Amino acid sequence: MSPLYFDYAAATPLAPEVLAAMQPFFSGEFYNPSAAYLAAKQVREALETARAGVASHLGAKPSEIIFTAGGTEADNLAIHGVMRQHPDTNLVISAIEHDAVLEPAKQYPHQLLPVTKDGRVDVSKLEKLINGRTVLVSVMLANNEIGTIQPLREVVAVLQKIRKKRSKQDNPLPLYLHTDACQAAAWLDLHVARLGVDLMTINAGKIYGPKQCAALFVGSRVRLSPLMHGGGQERGLRNGTENIANFVGLAKALNMVQAAKDSEGRRLAGLQKLFYKLLEEKIPHAVVNGAKDRRLVNNVHITIPGQDNERLLYALDEKGIQCATGSACSAASTDPSHVLKAIGLSDDDARSSLRFTFGKGTTEEAIRMLVDELVSVLE
Amino acid sequence: MSPLYFDYAAATPLAPEVLAAMQPFFSGEFYNPSAAYLAAKQVREALETARAGVASHLGAKPSEIIFTAGGTEADNLAIHGVMRQHPDTNLVISAIEHDAVLEPAKQYPHQLLPVTKDGRVDVSKLEKLINGRTVLVSVMLANNEIGTIQPLREVVAVLQKIRKKRSKQDNPLPLYLHTDACQAAAWLDLHVARLGVDLMTINAGKIYGPKQCAALFVGSRVRLSPLMHGGGQERGLRNGTENIANFVGLAKALNMVQAAKDSEGRRLAGLQKLFYKLLEEKIPHAVVNGAKDRRLVNNVHITIPGQDNERLLYALDEKGIQCATGSACSAASTDPSHVLKAIGLSDDDARSSLRFTFGKGTTEEAIRMLVDELVSVLE
Repeated sequence: MSPLYFDYAAATPLAPEVLAAMQPFFSGEFYNPSAAYLAAKQVREALETARAGVASHLGAKPSEIIFTAGGTEADNLAIHGVMRQHPDTNLVISAIEHDAVLEPAKQYPHQLLPVTKDGRVDVSKLEKLINGRTVLVSVMLANNEIGTIQPLREVVAVLQKIRKKRSKQDNPLPLYLHTDACQAAAWLDLHVARLGVDLMTINAGKIYGPKQCAALFVGSRVRLSPLMHGGGQERGLRNGTENIANFVGLAKALNMVQAAKDSEGRRLAGLQKLFYKLLEEKIPHAVVNGAKDRRLVNNVHITIPGQDNERLLYALDEKGIQCATGSACSAASTDPSHVLKAIGLSDDDARSSLRFTFGKGTTEEAIRMLVDELVSVLE
Repeated sequence: MSPLYFDYAAATPLAPEVLAAMQPFFSGEFYNPSAAYLAAKQVREALETARAGVASHLGAKPSEIIFTAGGTEADNLAIHGVMRQHPDTNLVISAIEHDAVLEPAKQYPHQLLPVTKDGRVDVSKLEKLINGRTVLVSVMLANNEIGTIQPLREVVAVLQKIRKKRSKQDNPLPLYLHTDACQAAAWLDLHVARLGVDLMTINAGKIYGPKQCAALFVGSRVRLSPLMHGGGQERGLRNGTENIANFVGLAKALNMVQAAKDSEGRRLAGLQKLFYKLLEEKIPHAVVNGAKDRRLVNNVHITIPGQDNERLLYALDEKGIQCATGSACSAASTDPSHVLKAIGLSDDDARSSLRFTFGKGTTEEAIRMLVDELVSVLE
């Protein structure tokens, strides 16, 4: 039996349709898009078509889309890019950001916006964390570990109030909002004006697109410093020869998941509900982490008190069930997850927690087998 | 008739064998290599096998190979990486470096090592450009525009002398040598100890591998700061989920070009000689730029005085001949090439220059057609 995969938040297989869209650019239309002959200009056009396609899902201008080599790079471009443009400033990030935001933020004076027990940022604490030298706030659209959707509109309301105050006080410092939407792009509305964001990260590798391939929305008023310098590609913000195959793949992948958002969303919400129901029946002492309502439909995160999550993970793997103890990036670390600590879990409970994330290949039968196998490996 | 491609220095098609090596990691073994289950660990092993393969061609340890998303990124990691580790220091780069080295170098105090008329660095000038606060020298292995191979061994001799002097003077500052080998990997010996380099950039996109995919050799004594922060991948030097398909592709591509180095090198050297001969016969006033002897076998760079190179490029393109006026990255710029200025060409002569670079698909017939078409479009 082929294994049952419950780690779609860590990686997704490339969709055959995405690979088909990428294929022409591997060996046929392989030209450097900066070259001057006609065939290279046609490749450049394919790149710009991909850019316009991504922009359309975000309600953005094509010129506001910067293609990067991965979500971590895009998050770093947002954070370092803004902070280096504005020396002697600080930023505020949520306490449950991915390492791709948390680690660059640590390079600057920063404050952590706490989250409540249900895994959503406590917006009532935001205003006090922002001072006259705060230039950037970064709050993810949905969390990668516990799947909770963050109240961005409420964050925006606070920022708008502060922006107005700054304007009256003749403080010219901008106050930007960045959101890491890497986990959200298949499930949520990505319209940047409706969200109220100035910067947003989209990641192909989480939506059946290629890895090390992402886009950063950069609102036209935002000035960024690049992470790397060179030939001037991507408006000088991502230098180096473009990977056209990847960016065409990203556009195709985003098209596909956004088109299937409602139907696939309903399907997975049903599986999520089934999972909860089976858990209540068969492992009633398991605790679901994070709000059950404002949550990605493809994420169930549980603590089973007294169980060692690494042992469970390996035991499940032997039964053909692939899941995670936390974010894949931190899988090698032995520290308990900063996300679980932020929502108030003890170290022991954090070490008794498992993440199951669903996707295209997840069926009702798979969910039933998962819970049965989970029961069988408990001590 | 399909066009004749003479721009292999700008981009190469993905070799079918390389694509075949990448294929398993698109939709089958797509796992995040940081995940803990067995299938993900097998993907991790494929990554480490690729790393060991690249290392073997360089005579390096696998731990000295950092995979990055492109040659520009690898060059930036070398330059920014060293310079940020050593505040208040300076660097020396050759006057003919690619923008991927030149532009990051410009962010720090730097000196340009001049080149002689034949397009090779003037090593006699090096010692004077290095002072007690110089931490890095970057000289490319072969130039991307005029194909000249640089005298790295002579550069190393100068650096060794200075390192010894520093040791006697109790100056603990290291003096590292970086080389951008992006254009050289198919043709030259890449053994880092024989070359005497501490850092070296290899680029898949120039050797029939995937784009935005490269490796930086980082000698085990060299400490670098990362360009981006995150989950700790690639020893913390290239954070973000790895693109296994790409890195497996890079290893395969490097295997292939290094295995074919001698035979393909002889074949292209013959075509290069033929090109020179036909030029002498049919366009005797054309001037070959850069040394004819210490030069990549796949590069011919000429000035045809009085001709406008952009007009020639477009006229050749209409005849089915694809070539370049300079480096692809600067193709959009209207400034004359800094490389051609460095070897002493006037602005007018620089604007009368064309680059032809050969590869797998280049045949004797193609060279003959190229020269005939070139004659036909001259004014």
